[in-house]
Amino acid sequence: MTSSTAEALRHHPIRLSDEERTGSVDAETFKSAFRLHPAGVAVVTADPTGDEPVAMTVSSLASVSTEPPMLVFSVSALSSSAPALERSDTVVVHMLGADHLGIAKLGATSGIDRFADRDAWRRLPTGEPVFTEVYSWLRGEIVFRLEAGNSTICIVHVVEAHLPEVAPDTAPLVYHARTWHRLGEGSTID
Amino acid sequence: MTSSTAEALRHHPIRLSDEERTGSVDAETFKSAFRLHPAGVAVVTADPTGDEPVAMTVSSLASVSTEPPMLVFSVSALSSSAPALERSDTVVVHMLGADHLGIAKLGATSGIDRFADRDAWRRLPTGEPVFTEVYSWLRGEIVFRLEAGNSTICIVHVVEAHLPEVAPDTAPLVYHARTWHRLGEGSTID
Repeated sequence: MTSSTAEALRHHPIRLSDEERTGSVDAETFKSAFRLHPAGVAVVTADPTGDEPVAMTVSSLASVSTEPPMLVFSVSALSSSAPALERSDTVVVHMLGADHLGIAKLGATSGIDRFADRDAWRRLPTGEPVFTEVYSWLRGEIVFRLEAGNSTICIVHVVEAHLPEVAPDTAPLVYHARTWHRLGEGSTID
Repeated sequence: MTSSTAEALRHHPIRLSDEERTGSVDAETFKSAFRLHPAGVAVVTADPTGDEPVAMTVSSLASVSTEPPMLVFSVSALSSSAPALERSDTVVVHMLGADHLGIAKLGATSGIDRFADRDAWRRLPTGEPVFTEVYSWLRGEIVFRLEAGNSTICIVHVVEAHLPEVAPDTAPLVYHARTWHRLGEGSTID
């Protein structure tokens, strides 16, 4: 297998025909549907060169496979982090609780230097930035990229986990209808 | 392009080397990390033959692209719905609120006939089953399948939307740490 073939097998564009595109639901209706769908929040960091750290808040993180462990998230082509993520082999995925709302906002605000506070993050030996107040994160290799419309779906094979031994006492952070929420006490139903 | 080539371009297995697999985080640690990550809930239905309706509750639904509108979810190979979904060209994705907990449980309980209550669902002209108490759903074509470990990631191009004109008064349904939750009043933070 040539290296270009190998690369092609790990990066693939989804092509829709003109006829398929014409039959699409309009973007506003589609967005309305997803405003009904809450999501957990994560921050993805990377640094392909050691000199251009990026951080991006995502509401598309999901577990895909447990053996081998793989997760998925998607990156909008409009994200300022998209070019660096496109060239990164590895990422760190920070699992955010409600106590980490500041980090969630940091990774979702455009036009700011997300690494300006030098005390808020450190660099792993492997080069990726980690926000030190987030106690749970996963590090992994991007094993597949799928171009889907105006986003890229990234599949990540998880090779390192940093989890506290004792579960921290923070409420889960949820993003819903353009608003941040915490899962409150007594939210359980059955 | 031959039809087998076209098919290959829309169904792809991710292959990890033995060395990559050896470097994986263990499954229990990976699952612990995702117990920190809440998710919205959806039920995916399909019927490839008109005679074998399937329904499956997923916590992996995410919006991917708005133009064209595409969404993603993943299907465990262990799901009883996996074989039928593998052969389906189209699916219906039901967006669930807390009022639809019964449907969420129905699609997550194994060993039962999920379509036993003939009054609870109807069939669209295109053949897919719809649970009638769920007022918001999207219908789409599976445009790509990516095999990732013990799951298949499905990318769906959305071609039809059924949304109420007036937003319903139900709390969002959230799945977190193996428990169902509703986003309660006053959960907003900023």
